[in-house]
Amino acid sequence: MARVEPEQNSIFATEMGEKNTLLLQALAGEMTPRPPVWVMRQAGRILPEYRAVRSRLSGFKELVETPELACEVTLQPVDLLGVDAAILFSDILVVPEAMGLPYELIEKVGPRFPETIGSAADLKRLHPVEPEEHLKYVLDAMRMTRRALDERVPLIGFAGAPWTIFCYMIEGGGSKEWSRARRMLRSEPALAEDLLDRITEATIAYLNAQVEAGAQALQLFDSWAGALDATLFERYSLPRLRRICEEVKGAPLIVFAKGAGWQLDRLATLPCQALGIDWHTPVAEARRRAPEHVLQGNLDPSTLYGTETEVRAATQRMLKDFGRGKHVVNLGHGVYPDIDPDRVRAFIDEVKRSGD
Amino acid sequence: MARVEPEQNSIFATEMGEKNTLLLQALAGEMTPRPPVWVMRQAGRILPEYRAVRSRLSGFKELVETPELACEVTLQPVDLLGVDAAILFSDILVVPEAMGLPYELIEKVGPRFPETIGSAADLKRLHPVEPEEHLKYVLDAMRMTRRALDERVPLIGFAGAPWTIFCYMIEGGGSKEWSRARRMLRSEPALAEDLLDRITEATIAYLNAQVEAGAQALQLFDSWAGALDATLFERYSLPRLRRICEEVKGAPLIVFAKGAGWQLDRLATLPCQALGIDWHTPVAEARRRAPEHVLQGNLDPSTLYGTETEVRAATQRMLKDFGRGKHVVNLGHGVYPDIDPDRVRAFIDEVKRSGD
Repeated sequence: MARVEPEQNSIFATEMGEKNTLLLQALAGEMTPRPPVWVMRQAGRILPEYRAVRSRLSGFKELVETPELACEVTLQPVDLLGVDAAILFSDILVVPEAMGLPYELIEKVGPRFPETIGSAADLKRLHPVEPEEHLKYVLDAMRMTRRALDERVPLIGFAGAPWTIFCYMIEGGGSKEWSRARRMLRSEPALAEDLLDRITEATIAYLNAQVEAGAQALQLFDSWAGALDATLFERYSLPRLRRICEEVKGAPLIVFAKGAGWQLDRLATLPCQALGIDWHTPVAEARRRAPEHVLQGNLDPSTLYGTETEVRAATQRMLKDFGRGKHVVNLGHGVYPDIDPDRVRAFIDEVKRSGD
Repeated sequence: MARVEPEQNSIFATEMGEKNTLLLQALAGEMTPRPPVWVMRQAGRILPEYRAVRSRLSGFKELVETPELACEVTLQPVDLLGVDAAILFSDILVVPEAMGLPYELIEKVGPRFPETIGSAADLKRLHPVEPEEHLKYVLDAMRMTRRALDERVPLIGFAGAPWTIFCYMIEGGGSKEWSRARRMLRSEPALAEDLLDRITEATIAYLNAQVEAGAQALQLFDSWAGALDATLFERYSLPRLRRICEEVKGAPLIVFAKGAGWQLDRLATLPCQALGIDWHTPVAEARRRAPEHVLQGNLDPSTLYGTETEVRAATQRMLKDFGRGKHVVNLGHGVYPDIDPDRVRAFIDEVKRSGD
């Protein structure tokens, strides 16, 4: 097994020009001196330096669609928080847009699709995705960021899982219950399968193109997996996750099915390298259900509202719960916008100290 | 153990003037010829007869606050769907309003509190609840409905659990993450405990008054329990649920902590008669974690978007999963507004047939 020098690798990686490959080692199942740590939504949201970039722009989409800017904010948490990986600043909704359904992001409200899929006729609006044509701005940002990182830390790419993208394409925006999307699974299963397959194909092409453009690891976000019961999850979501795991090559894949802790037995059958665990799922239960996989997670982001002492203690407890090895440290969901970056630093620092 | 005549008791209860006490028997742990069935949100939402009443009014609150109307729509599902219990048409937000924080219900948006609790100073807005003074309209509706039911089926009262009410009082409206409410638990625990205790006391007084006014069973809705990790749930929610279980007398209590399947071991320590199970939680896991309690649930409401055949098959599967006894049939969450009442009838009928 490859080993790294803990001291040089972790905290001082940037200063010393070291290559921090902890994430890739951990995803390969290797034992590392300490677990790697990154934070969902680390790029954007909490850093004043991000807000400074953001405030100069017309909107969120300008940031997503301008490679230089996406690259800039992707690098910020590497420099300013000291995470062990960069994740490209982008949005899962670029895929449905590339398929033919454009999205808007409305300040303080969220995403909105002016057109949605309600019937078989609406499928005519959609077309297959050619990543270098329809998503070139993401791939350019990926290439630029990979160069700029200069191997300091690995670069993560990502996409939404088919079920999650389907939710937005049906509902046209956020929803608590996703009952319209679930209604389509129940009342028009053939149409639902067709749309899910189209999304799956676009996602496979997109993720493979990300790897080609420099992504060294990938995360698949099934953010609304928790809206499905076991039967629906098994029929509609799981087979597409499997197909993506099988057809995306060249980078380890983390599948994060939020709110789907009860489906971990099923998720554990996927040929991916890691499974993300939300903060609701007890770590021991996750280990029991998915004993072979690397697990990623799972501190409750709201823990970071506590004092520094509380943050460090909670981080220690979490590290103990996961035990040594097969663990990529992260929150159990994206960091909240009003969390103090210093608390995120304390969280990261506590993980780094665990290797001392 | 008391037994009932299945045929006479269930389907033809109304016609034959029989007293259908299936729910009370099941909650008492008695074996019944078939499980009782009712539907969360059965009053309101799906029935055209409800919409006819609703369309004559200025808004939802008028319905909640006018005992004759609340009584009318409470009876509708007993007559029109054939459920084994009535649940009073009301809203969990009447309690924070009675404490001093009025709420509005905005069409297609949801509840909104013009004033919220953000600091210790805001607690001065609140006062203890005298149910016969501050919530007389609910108690009047309860008395009227109990009389109108004439013992045909039992009448259920309800309230929100302290954590769930707390969420609204802090956030001022719905939220996906309830991160502001969770922030208060993390950053101002003393203030949070104070507010939660005030809500708990109001809730105990309110539920005891409901029993006095005629409620024969009670349900406590911890709708946002799923936003808490195990540590927060154990510290902030569970002790208040326990206090309510201990201090509310005279009617069996169902605790429904939605999204908190992972907390079922803890919920199983509560001295209540039944635990509600959401549709995410596998029945076998629930039985394993709470073997002593009657369980209520848990069909995915979106199942009712399927064909009648699918609805009946899914209901059969659920009945089989729960096994005979210690089961109150329900959905795993409230019925969705666009579900066809005939599908709800098929669900109910399938449960009734199981006693043949």
